[in-house]
Amino acid sequence: MLTELKREAYEANIALPQQGLINLTFGNASAIDRDQGIFAIKPSGVDYNELTPEMMVLLDLDGNQVEGDLRPSSDTPTHRRLFIAFESIGGVVHTHSTHATSFAQAGRAIPIFGTTHADYFYGDIPVTRKMTPEEIGGGAYEWETGNVIVEKFADLDPADYPAVLVNRHAPFTWGKDAAKAVEVAVATECIAHMALLSLQLEPQLPPIEAELLQKHFKRKHGPDAYYGQGGNG
Amino acid sequence: MLTELKREAYEANIALPQQGLINLTFGNASAIDRDQGIFAIKPSGVDYNELTPEMMVLLDLDGNQVEGDLRPSSDTPTHRRLFIAFESIGGVVHTHSTHATSFAQAGRAIPIFGTTHADYFYGDIPVTRKMTPEEIGGGAYEWETGNVIVEKFADLDPADYPAVLVNRHAPFTWGKDAAKAVEVAVATECIAHMALLSLQLEPQLPPIEAELLQKHFKRKHGPDAYYGQGGNG
Amino acid sequence: MLTELKREAYEANIALPQQGLINLTFGNASAIDRDQGIFAIKPSGVDYNELTPEMMVLLDLDGNQVEGDLRPSSDTPTHRRLFIAFESIGGVVHTHSTHATSFAQAGRAIPIFGTTHADYFYGDIPVTRKMTPEEIGGGAYEWETGNVIVEKFADLDPADYPAVLVNRHAPFTWGKDAAKAVEVAVATECIAHMALLSLQLEPQLPPIEAELLQKHFKRKHGPDAYYGQGGNG
Amino acid sequence: MLTELKREAYEANIALPQQGLINLTFGNASAIDRDQGIFAIKPSGVDYNELTPEMMVLLDLDGNQVEGDLRPSSDTPTHRRLFIAFESIGGVVHTHSTHATSFAQAGRAIPIFGTTHADYFYGDIPVTRKMTPEEIGGGAYEWETGNVIVEKFADLDPADYPAVLVNRHAPFTWGKDAAKAVEVAVATECIAHMALLSLQLEPQLPPIEAELLQKHFKRKHGPDAYYGQGGNG
Repeated sequence: MLTELKREAYEANIALPQQGLINLTFGNASAIDRDQGIFAIKPSGVDYNELTPEMMVLLDLDGNQVEGDLRPSSDTPTHRRLFIAFESIGGVVHTHSTHATSFAQAGRAIPIFGTTHADYFYGDIPVTRKMTPEEIGGGAYEWETGNVIVEKFADLDPADYPAVLVNRHAPFTWGKDAAKAVEVAVATECIAHMALLSLQLEPQLPPIEAELLQKHFKRKHGPDAYYGQGGNG
Repeated sequence: MLTELKREAYEANIALPQQGLINLTFGNASAIDRDQGIFAIKPSGVDYNELTPEMMVLLDLDGNQVEGDLRPSSDTPTHRRLFIAFESIGGVVHTHSTHATSFAQAGRAIPIFGTTHADYFYGDIPVTRKMTPEEIGGGAYEWETGNVIVEKFADLDPADYPAVLVNRHAPFTWGKDAAKAVEVAVATECIAHMALLSLQLEPQLPPIEAELLQKHFKRKHGPDAYYGQGGNG
Repeated sequence: MLTELKREAYEANIALPQQGLINLTFGNASAIDRDQGIFAIKPSGVDYNELTPEMMVLLDLDGNQVEGDLRPSSDTPTHRRLFIAFESIGGVVHTHSTHATSFAQAGRAIPIFGTTHADYFYGDIPVTRKMTPEEIGGGAYEWETGNVIVEKFADLDPADYPAVLVNRHAPFTWGKDAAKAVEVAVATECIAHMALLSLQLEPQLPPIEAELLQKHFKRKHGPDAYYGQGGNG
Repeated sequence: MLTELKREAYEANIALPQQGLINLTFGNASAIDRDQGIFAIKPSGVDYNELTPEMMVLLDLDGNQVEGDLRPSSDTPTHRRLFIAFESIGGVVHTHSTHATSFAQAGRAIPIFGTTHADYFYGDIPVTRKMTPEEIGGGAYEWETGNVIVEKFADLDPADYPAVLVNRHAPFTWGKDAAKAVEVAVATECIAHMALLSLQLEPQLPPIEAELLQKHFKRKHGPDAYYGQGGNG
């Protein structure tokens, strides 16, 4: 069932090592069919070279595995939590990409220094608070990981900030489908790399000016968008 | 029409990701036919893998689209502004290459520290002033981006400085044709990378000595050039 | 003899340059058959492009060469020392991978800053003490290199810490077989890169919190593991 | 004439971009036939993709072009100066590799911090003094570049130090043949990268201990060498 959805999730997963975002099996991608309330995700610990569309595991939003012989990614409850909380998204990607993860390990948001960043985000790429011992050790670690992300977005729109750094861990990104979540993961790593180098040049560098942020973000998002070939970008 | 020009622009565009200068769709290249006053540029937001020479959009120097079904790159007015102001150039390239963009984000010129830099530029790679809210929000943002570049070159010869960093944004480069603009984009990223590492080793490093700059720049440019196989390089 | 063992060692060796862990001939991998007490290792100074499974050299744990026309890797006594001391391991890898080696040169353990690290190690990646002039010059340098590693592990379990940095030198990694030792070598380089960048962002960054370390390490190791497709990961 | 020599020089030249040491046309390699006193070198400014063995230019040690229609590399007099001064070498390589060039731009020798470095060099990789305005502008710039290298080696054996950084410029390396000079160029870039990162971790890091330097260098060089498959390495 849901052959197309499994292919979408599969293609997003194999794009991750191709884009240099993943070493070994450090990451996963998922895609959801909102009509059916079912999402497809990578099986746990399987080498990307051996992955096929048929191996994708299907689950519903209550966490029940509805198809697939393999165990789903151990991060599945985090993806599920995001699909429930962020109703407009169609795909989620998790990587340990080098520069974004370095910010996450340091517990720092990725500061917005230029237009590359503003093309994708309406401000700094946020970082979650640290998780408590209870959240970590209470038996639902990956679900609680989703919860600290959702908590961070109490006052943020996931369409304006399509990525987050989990403190001490690594980035999660999302988009209207899995391919867009991969694109945001590529952009996040690139933005993190340039932010780190800009900080090396100017340790006290202030954020981008408000008008320039507004201009670049709105050039690609919302009713006045004029980038790309679509009606409103 | 202008099949050769479209091919030149196409080849410059696809060289950008091949040279590692572009992620996703962060960049574009254009080429101009000076006799006809028409330039060819990448369509907006199209994946480099799907690009063909026929997709290139043709425009005149007043900004009228004279051929092509697709919308041209959103940066087209910047290219157009440069073609008008810098009459000797035949191609323009825009990238968000990692190290050059990090200098742009920090609002810093790329200091000239060695002969690699002097082989291409007659001094620091300049950075524009920041754009004003009016320039950004007044409805002609990309044209005004071209204007701040042209303003910066009031006292600089674009043949001596074939690249600029737009403050908070990224580099633009140019040359006698689009292929040369690509070459300068490669050199600019390489020079930026080495400048950043040299600064890490010696934060107060002074610029290259005047004689060495003179020697290397003139070895490749102007009537006394003796590099390469051409009559005067 | 031991065709399968030679193939395992061969495949681990050629994986090293493919994974970007090795330049030139800076590294080697070995695999042991515990029943026979014989291990296979790369011949010394042979280019990875010319390597074949048949070239692998077989030695027993007393250091006697039992098969092979070529001289074994000069690091063979270090591998042998580790196979004797760490009875549970089946493969050893030595690289000069860039970031891990930079920590080794600086004489610093790789501090544990995030979950990527905790997925593989139960704490900092240890660094040996410096070797004495007698250990270096006494005629058994590579064996003594093994001895300083073993000394470092007097109070450490090699299953909890599957890598070490030899001071001033470079990393050695190990695992249940040679392929796992390669995987740990990839992870070690990646972890070192991110630790270095995290330190650049936060020079006084404290280590990962105890609960998160515990959670991630145990998620992949020991009786309660639930990562991957195996019974206990 | 000298088909074999031209092939050796050709293969060394095309290895440079393959090894990631060269962007654009920033570099060149040469090989000498000592019996005939003739060396082969890359033509100036030719793209590596278009190079063929037949394009290699042949010159004698007085600088006379004895074969070839193309103009030789503008750096030819530097190669010639080194072939004259260092009688034991058979090949010379010049690159602008990123990390080694960053040290050259900063005017700093590459400090010896670990065994990777000691496997190739008997101490720091030296840097020349800056060239005087007369040396630069007097009409024999590239020959004078060779002279400042030779001056630096008044008290150094080129077999113990098979590379140099030309101040403000970039590295030159050499070896018994052109392939060995390429190998040293790869090692030099790798060593420079790790030295820079080690300095980032420990800005006051002292050099490697004398015994360890002695051990690693002599393991690969001279009568007591035991690395590789040769009689004395």
